[in-house]
Amino acid sequence: MSFNNQFKNGIVILGAGNVATHLSLALHKANFNILSVYSKTLDSAKTLAEKINTNYTNDIEQIPDNADLYIIAVKDEAIVEIIRHLSVSGAVVHTAGSISMNIFEGLYKDYGVIYPLQTFSKSRNLEFAEIPICIEANNKELENKLFSLAESLSRNVNVINSEKREMLHLAAVFACNFVNHMYSIATEILTEADIPFKLLIPLINETALKAIDSDPRRTQTGPALRNDQNVIQKHIEVLKEYPEFEKIYKFVSDSIYKLNQKNNKENNGEF
Amino acid sequence: MSFNNQFKNGIVILGAGNVATHLSLALHKANFNILSVYSKTLDSAKTLAEKINTNYTNDIEQIPDNADLYIIAVKDEAIVEIIRHLSVSGAVVHTAGSISMNIFEGLYKDYGVIYPLQTFSKSRNLEFAEIPICIEANNKELENKLFSLAESLSRNVNVINSEKREMLHLAAVFACNFVNHMYSIATEILTEADIPFKLLIPLINETALKAIDSDPRRTQTGPALRNDQNVIQKHIEVLKEYPEFEKIYKFVSDSIYKLNQKNNKENNGEF
Repeated sequence: MSFNNQFKNGIVILGAGNVATHLSLALHKANFNILSVYSKTLDSAKTLAEKINTNYTNDIEQIPDNADLYIIAVKDEAIVEIIRHLSVSGAVVHTAGSISMNIFEGLYKDYGVIYPLQTFSKSRNLEFAEIPICIEANNKELENKLFSLAESLSRNVNVINSEKREMLHLAAVFACNFVNHMYSIATEILTEADIPFKLLIPLINETALKAIDSDPRRTQTGPALRNDQNVIQKHIEVLKEYPEFEKIYKFVSDSIYKLNQKNNKENNGEF
Repeated sequence: MSFNNQFKNGIVILGAGNVATHLSLALHKANFNILSVYSKTLDSAKTLAEKINTNYTNDIEQIPDNADLYIIAVKDEAIVEIIRHLSVSGAVVHTAGSISMNIFEGLYKDYGVIYPLQTFSKSRNLEFAEIPICIEANNKELENKLFSLAESLSRNVNVINSEKREMLHLAAVFACNFVNHMYSIATEILTEADIPFKLLIPLINETALKAIDSDPRRTQTGPALRNDQNVIQKHIEVLKEYPEFEKIYKFVSDSIYKLNQKNNKENNGEF
């Protein structure tokens, strides 16, 4: 097997969680030369390393020091701990949405970010080619190299600086984590009422499609938009047993109404 | 043209909004005999009536009194006003999620509900066959008739009582309106930062698919789940200029963490 020409002295993966796993699998598939997987949990390192036929370690001192690229894909708070011990001459990048590239300043000559914008679960297969990858580097040469690497994995590569990446991450938290929490609350309510979740599937699909096809601020529907206090008060009554959800219901309903007023859009939808 | 055998003396549609429009189009397509469209706004009544080649009026006294079925598809608060003036012997139903069937008690002999569970906008075409329709009636004969009518429109027909329908509607508000609001906030943030919304499309798709494929309570990812205060505090800082969104960010983040603790699930995802 001949390796991909890029970063041909090899790549080291630091981390073995969801992002590290999906990114490593995509790099392996694109024939990048992955020298080693590091994780502080040896079992996790082993599991990932076996998937991509490479070495693994839980000792940061054992990481090869001659690699061209070190990709740190761990929880944000663990990045600092890793770079305290990682003394290398190759380029170093992280994969975090809300950590500035400058965390590496003064520590390495070449550094940057490879941020794949997706929600990763180990158990789900993803078409990596469709995932937007946002890259950033402290010099043009590395930027070009990272761009080229990212283009080997995805059709959707973007150069985005740290400040914008943080805003993008924040937007993604709303569009993914918070959306998923709304699904979770719906599930809790349906479970309690013994109603099958599958009744909501066409609604979930259409809501996502509508947001993708047109500005979601213009297509809102439902009692909050209409300020239908009759319905809103009934719902709040039902939620009395779930104070957390009641609070969210009130604040989000209020915010829907206010955003609509602010945008002074016509109510063009009913639920 | 020969009409559908069901409710063959005809159906009257009261309302000309999104639900009335989509439902009327589906009934028309299934060859139901629609006698007339009523709306208090004559133009709206006319627009809908022309789409389905029928009569229209804005005078409730002019509604044919010999129809088999009257479908009231108006805003919840307008239902009471309509039934105060609607004196007929045919069956009367409404299409609202959170209004009990008993609103009709004592007023009509046969009454019920046809609740299509979807987010309707006039400008979007929908495959009505995929939309779950929940029906309810005050007697078995009408229930059978409504079930049969609904089956002419959709593959997904369910008999659901008023109490459960309200819970279903509440769940739908979270899974649709509140989800859409999260998309709207994401759009506001991206617009402010001059980042194209299309970067979020793969994430929106995957988040919806994941929820449909597995319990969303088990697949949550992101900083709130990990209680990553480093990221959370940065995001709250950015949101200082948007107090509404900041409040939602805090409450939803808090609720994600608590729901996860409650369900005592493993953190099986990272953002």
